[in-house]
Amino acid sequence: MISNRKEEHIRIAENEKVESEHNFWDDIKIIHRAMPEVNFDEIDLSVDFLGKKIGAPMIISSMTGGVEVAKKINRNLAAAAEKFNIPMGVGSMRAAVEKKELADSFSVINDFNIPVRFANIGAPQLIDQAKPAFRDADIDYVMDLIHADFLIIHFNFLQEMIQPEGDRNGKGVKKRVSEIASSYPVIVKETGNGFSREDALELKDAGVRAIDVGGLGGTSFAAIEYYRALKANDEEKANSGLSFWNWGIPSPAAIKYCDVGIPVIGSGGLRTGLDLAKALMLGAVAGGFARTLLRSADDSQESIFKRVSFILRDLKIAMFLTGQTRPYGLRRVKYFVLEPLRSWMEAV
Amino acid sequence: MISNRKEEHIRIAENEKVESEHNFWDDIKIIHRAMPEVNFDEIDLSVDFLGKKIGAPMIISSMTGGVEVAKKINRNLAAAAEKFNIPMGVGSMRAAVEKKELADSFSVINDFNIPVRFANIGAPQLIDQAKPAFRDADIDYVMDLIHADFLIIHFNFLQEMIQPEGDRNGKGVKKRVSEIASSYPVIVKETGNGFSREDALELKDAGVRAIDVGGLGGTSFAAIEYYRALKANDEEKANSGLSFWNWGIPSPAAIKYCDVGIPVIGSGGLRTGLDLAKALMLGAVAGGFARTLLRSADDSQESIFKRVSFILRDLKIAMFLTGQTRPYGLRRVKYFVLEPLRSWMEAV
Amino acid sequence: MISNRKEEHIRIAENEKVESEHNFWDDIKIIHRAMPEVNFDEIDLSVDFLGKKIGAPMIISSMTGGVEVAKKINRNLAAAAEKFNIPMGVGSMRAAVEKKELADSFSVINDFNIPVRFANIGAPQLIDQAKPAFRDADIDYVMDLIHADFLIIHFNFLQEMIQPEGDRNGKGVKKRVSEIASSYPVIVKETGNGFSREDALELKDAGVRAIDVGGLGGTSFAAIEYYRALKANDEEKANSGLSFWNWGIPSPAAIKYCDVGIPVIGSGGLRTGLDLAKALMLGAVAGGFARTLLRSADDSQESIFKRVSFILRDLKIAMFLTGQTRPYGLRRVKYFVLEPLRSWMEAV
Amino acid sequence: MISNRKEEHIRIAENEKVESEHNFWDDIKIIHRAMPEVNFDEIDLSVDFLGKKIGAPMIISSMTGGVEVAKKINRNLAAAAEKFNIPMGVGSMRAAVEKKELADSFSVINDFNIPVRFANIGAPQLIDQAKPAFRDADIDYVMDLIHADFLIIHFNFLQEMIQPEGDRNGKGVKKRVSEIASSYPVIVKETGNGFSREDALELKDAGVRAIDVGGLGGTSFAAIEYYRALKANDEEKANSGLSFWNWGIPSPAAIKYCDVGIPVIGSGGLRTGLDLAKALMLGAVAGGFARTLLRSADDSQESIFKRVSFILRDLKIAMFLTGQTRPYGLRRVKYFVLEPLRSWMEAV
Ligand SMILES: Cc1cc2nc3c(=O)[nH]c(=O)nc-3n(C[C@H](O)[C@H](O)[C@H](O)COP(=O)(O)O)c2cc1C
Ligand SMILES: Cc1cc2nc3c(=O)[nH]c(=O)nc-3n(C[C@H](O)[C@H](O)[C@H](O)COP(=O)(O)O)c2cc1C
Ligand SMILES: Cc1cc2nc3c(=O)[nH]c(=O)nc-3n(C[C@H](O)[C@H](O)[C@H](O)COP(=O)(O)O)c2cc1C
Ligand SMILES: Cc1cc2nc3c(=O)[nH]c(=O)nc-3n(C[C@H](O)[C@H](O)[C@H](O)COP(=O)(O)O)c2cc1C
Repeated sequence: MISNRKEEHIRIAENEKVESEHNFWDDIKIIHRAMPEVNFDEIDLSVDFLGKKIGAPMIISSMTGGVEVAKKINRNLAAAAEKFNIPMGVGSMRAAVEKKELADSFSVINDFNIPVRFANIGAPQLIDQAKPAFRDADIDYVMDLIHADFLIIHFNFLQEMIQPEGDRNGKGVKKRVSEIASSYPVIVKETGNGFSREDALELKDAGVRAIDVGGLGGTSFAAIEYYRALKANDEEKANSGLSFWNWGIPSPAAIKYCDVGIPVIGSGGLRTGLDLAKALMLGAVAGGFARTLLRSADDSQESIFKRVSFILRDLKIAMFLTGQTRPYGLRRVKYFVLEPLRSWMEAV
Repeated sequence: MISNRKEEHIRIAENEKVESEHNFWDDIKIIHRAMPEVNFDEIDLSVDFLGKKIGAPMIISSMTGGVEVAKKINRNLAAAAEKFNIPMGVGSMRAAVEKKELADSFSVINDFNIPVRFANIGAPQLIDQAKPAFRDADIDYVMDLIHADFLIIHFNFLQEMIQPEGDRNGKGVKKRVSEIASSYPVIVKETGNGFSREDALELKDAGVRAIDVGGLGGTSFAAIEYYRALKANDEEKANSGLSFWNWGIPSPAAIKYCDVGIPVIGSGGLRTGLDLAKALMLGAVAGGFARTLLRSADDSQESIFKRVSFILRDLKIAMFLTGQTRPYGLRRVKYFVLEPLRSWMEAV
Repeated sequence: MISNRKEEHIRIAENEKVESEHNFWDDIKIIHRAMPEVNFDEIDLSVDFLGKKIGAPMIISSMTGGVEVAKKINRNLAAAAEKFNIPMGVGSMRAAVEKKELADSFSVINDFNIPVRFANIGAPQLIDQAKPAFRDADIDYVMDLIHADFLIIHFNFLQEMIQPEGDRNGKGVKKRVSEIASSYPVIVKETGNGFSREDALELKDAGVRAIDVGGLGGTSFAAIEYYRALKANDEEKANSGLSFWNWGIPSPAAIKYCDVGIPVIGSGGLRTGLDLAKALMLGAVAGGFARTLLRSADDSQESIFKRVSFILRDLKIAMFLTGQTRPYGLRRVKYFVLEPLRSWMEAV
Repeated sequence: MISNRKEEHIRIAENEKVESEHNFWDDIKIIHRAMPEVNFDEIDLSVDFLGKKIGAPMIISSMTGGVEVAKKINRNLAAAAEKFNIPMGVGSMRAAVEKKELADSFSVINDFNIPVRFANIGAPQLIDQAKPAFRDADIDYVMDLIHADFLIIHFNFLQEMIQPEGDRNGKGVKKRVSEIASSYPVIVKETGNGFSREDALELKDAGVRAIDVGGLGGTSFAAIEYYRALKANDEEKANSGLSFWNWGIPSPAAIKYCDVGIPVIGSGGLRTGLDLAKALMLGAVAGGFARTLLRSADDSQESIFKRVSFILRDLKIAMFLTGQTRPYGLRRVKYFVLEPLRSWMEAV
């Protein structure tokens, strides 16, 4: 069941139109510097990321595991994470807990020298649902399985509402996050709908180390689940998938909303290094890419190497053309925001 | 004549493009809560509606009666109203008064246990037109016919202007509404063009219990009558139908305009439970659905049950994702408004 | 030459896409009144127009004359002007002066009882150009020819720039207008590009009785002349026609700009009685229709009667739905303005 | 290599869709004068341009040289510069320095009597890159080669990032510009991405005589290089070409940003004399045209004569219709700015 679902997610994300109707990164306009006084070859993308030095402020976002095809994808992604010395997450590890024989689709990344590894579990699974909640032992297991530096707890309650087997309880999540955050280094992450200012404040209170905004503008899980529901003749879920296709807080707005005094990772809809530069301008410590990497990782190691190198090259170009040699220098760059993103930014 | 017209309205509404050019519910943006701290299964949609407890803040809007096909539609709608314990209206009951043999296309709903029933007459028929005005006895008759809790007086002067047999006098309506409202529990309702602040203040003065805004954004009766006029080779009416296709006050703006101290029902262009959630956020006590339900009700009981359950499910999802367990909690949720609706909201 | 040109204007206006890219009347939004308290049959469109009582605040704008086909068109327009008791203009009367045998294509309107008649000459012809300027005797002649109540002096300098045989001098026009206005009742009129505030102030100074704004949004003479130039293989003029296709001040903005203390006629792009209602809301004393009437007038008397009656009917509906029984009551009606017209309105 | 590239640039600019997604000149709206009180034939386009009297405030922007086809193009452009008495630039003269046998593709313009001649070298070539930097002797050579009045130093760092053989160092450019500007009359120019306020201030400090903004809105060199990369199967560059297709500061905004007390030339995306009028309204001393002239110049002398005369005619029409007889009078004309340009203008 899980593994089937995992494969479907991948195939739909690769082949269908699953994006939200507007990509809000396009609403950010940057003031170009014609005379940048920078040597492109001196641009150094390395940054300090949550205490670790990494090659670039780019993260390979949590995507897969728990199914045969995931092994290849995770291996290729891990090879890229090693090559470019950037952090990487794996997909939700519930599958690994439930079926230990699937564990190697995650642990395959252990063959690579990755600077920061993120284990991944879902917030809904922290509390009792149809199935019993994740226990501390389970967390230990998933952390160990990939020698994780951080535990990502992903929030995907919209997806739960649209997928057939979805968890329906959100009560008690905050308390449990708080408990876990006192024993493990936790990062919270949305999966395409973003966090509000209120969410951010409560999660900071709960002791999380960072927030990965996972905002609206790129992959829509309502869309992905819509396609699954269609195939399964589940009219109810397909209907909700359409209704909530564009639900959520645009990624750039979410970065602003989450500016509450802990590090913020910008993600959701990043396509290029230019989008990534915009996330960094807004104050993100790094930007996370998911679907933009998927097809390349599924294709070959060479292909994902190219994809990541293109992204980093475009980031460098954006830095070059704004006169910056270090990523966090982008925070000083002038930009402004057009509608509809402007209204979102002002709504906090 | 009437019955022919009634059937045409249904067929056109089912089969033609009869919506206004923009649905303004799309201009409302909601701030998502990633960590809602709500158990979906504890969400309780029941509300107090004008003194009665109902299953959800959703109304089956007045649509039909007075023609054979209406009987089936009203029966199915009534079955849904019973099943989901929600209020229901029938279409304009002039037909029942004029031809008593058509009465059962309305009274068919008496077979069902419906929490709140709305009788329905047109404001233009309250005064003398080509035909004599509705008398108190007529009102008694229609109220009794369906054991109505409220009398809806609908305002549809634009439609009157476009339909061949339209009533042309609006003078004296206010006084007559006032008289009737002193003897009967009256709700006023537009049919797709909304009420202005001035209308709302005058109607409150006249003693009505609630206002159902019936605003612009969904079914356009200018459009429906345009198609009828085309068919009838009535160039004059067809011409006016085109001119006034998009006339009126958008439903969400009308909710704001009608916020004058009596309950407001949000309607006009509601397609999903997400739209309904927006109406409730703006302060409506319930939202009314018409054309969205029509085809399902005409199809089968199973079909309309599904349709209503989908709407309520989407409402629940919107509540869940904004951290609310009770419908009126939605009034605390953060949202904002984009153009062109923003200008409409500011124009009051 | 002239008569050929006149015929071409008509054929192009009837058959080609000659409108500017945006019709700004659509940017005006009106607040509907659901309970208008008006009897449609008591709506009285008659108004006082520059001292004369007329049947409705609608003008048949200056269009044609000086060519065979014009006779039929002017006859049909005049029949409509008589029937609906509304003012009417004829096209530029230079042709009548130059070739007296063409005079009856104008004077044909004398067979009809028209409340207000406008003679028409071009501002560029008031001063010496390639041809000598219009003399007082010429003005006397054209006024007498159609028993005119007012002399319209039309401003069309953009058209002059695009048409092959265009006049190129604008210097001295103001002085000559001033002289003429001291002997004749003069109305100035643009032909699709509107008047600015500065123009309006100077023309008021010059003693004109009223300004007919003839703004951007409907027929574009740059467009019409573009098609003529294309046909004539005149690349230079065709090029300018494209460049200036959308040049000018939108009609509704021009009404505001021209609000300098003399009566303003709203025209340019009026399609329906709803557009006309908007012009009246903005303060115009009447609205002028040109191209909207052309094809009907060229077709038959029956056809133009219908067209005018439809326009007046829609005006009445707009009045009815905003609670007005008299045209100038529309000035009290609430409306607001969307972009891009909003910026134009604020630019005065 | 260079010559191949030069030819490719021309062919791509002539045949492919190489413009940025929006032309911002369209966002500027001008207030028309219906009664301009100007004699078209008295309009005098001549202006003082950096100390020299020229026939019109129009510049033939730097485009080509260093390849066979350039000779014909430059000869035709030079003939037009002579005929209309307007300044002219040639393309980057690196080619002439590296291969003296190509020099006549530039010096061909010496056969014509041109009021102002611009030599042209690239800012990146002022410092050591893969190849050694331009020396003073090289500058002397290129100035002499075409008897140049000014040395244009063009900034094109985005293009360098996208083209295969691109220079990557921007450090030291400012110092070198400053040195050169103390010995030669220097104008700086962008090639489609504009200058920021900061750039302008630094370049003024460096002693340049004028800034030619070369802003976003017309030819996109990211686009041109994208097509070249495609053809060369260079995925990396093609990818960056797409990412940065619309990068830069819109030309009209750049004119405002560069208003720092030295003359500003408006360029980038000018298509017609109407666009040129807008540049002059914003305060530019002249407007530069590149791609708009290319195909005509490549076609024939007759063709480029026509093209330039059309542009100047449209400029005159814009002046006529705003009541101006001299180009710099356009600075007094009323205009305003719509979105998205408005936000760009306010971002300085
Ligand atoms: C096929 C697929 C599977 C995903 N699985 C997970 C997951 O297991 N855990 C998680 O935190 N996010 C998951 N995500 C969400 C992504 O990490 C990311 O937040 C989201 O796709 C938005 O980013 P994008 O627009 O760059 O794709 C998945 C995304 C995709 C496309
Ligand atoms: C076929 C049809 C018949 C209707 N008949 C009535 C009626 O008799 N009385 C009434 O008050 N409204 C009537 N309405 C109007 C609806 O109640 C509602 O106000 C309007 O359609 C806008 O809502 P919608 O966009 O959800 O369809 C009718 C609507 C439709 C589509
Ligand atoms: C075929 C045609 C001929 C016209 N001839 C004249 C004319 O001779 N004199 C004049 O003042 N306006 C003339 N006009 C301009 C109109 O009176 C009017 O100002 C302009 O067309 C804009 O209005 P519209 O958008 O309603 O067409 C003419 C318009 C058309 C379409
Ligand atoms: C084919 C081509 C070659 C060009 N070569 C040069 C050049 O060598 N030096 C330079 O300063 N600009 C060069 N440019 C840039 C133009 O001068 C101009 O800045 C740019 O094209 C934007 O203007 P446009 O939108 O009018 O084309 C070139 C442009 C084109 C189309």
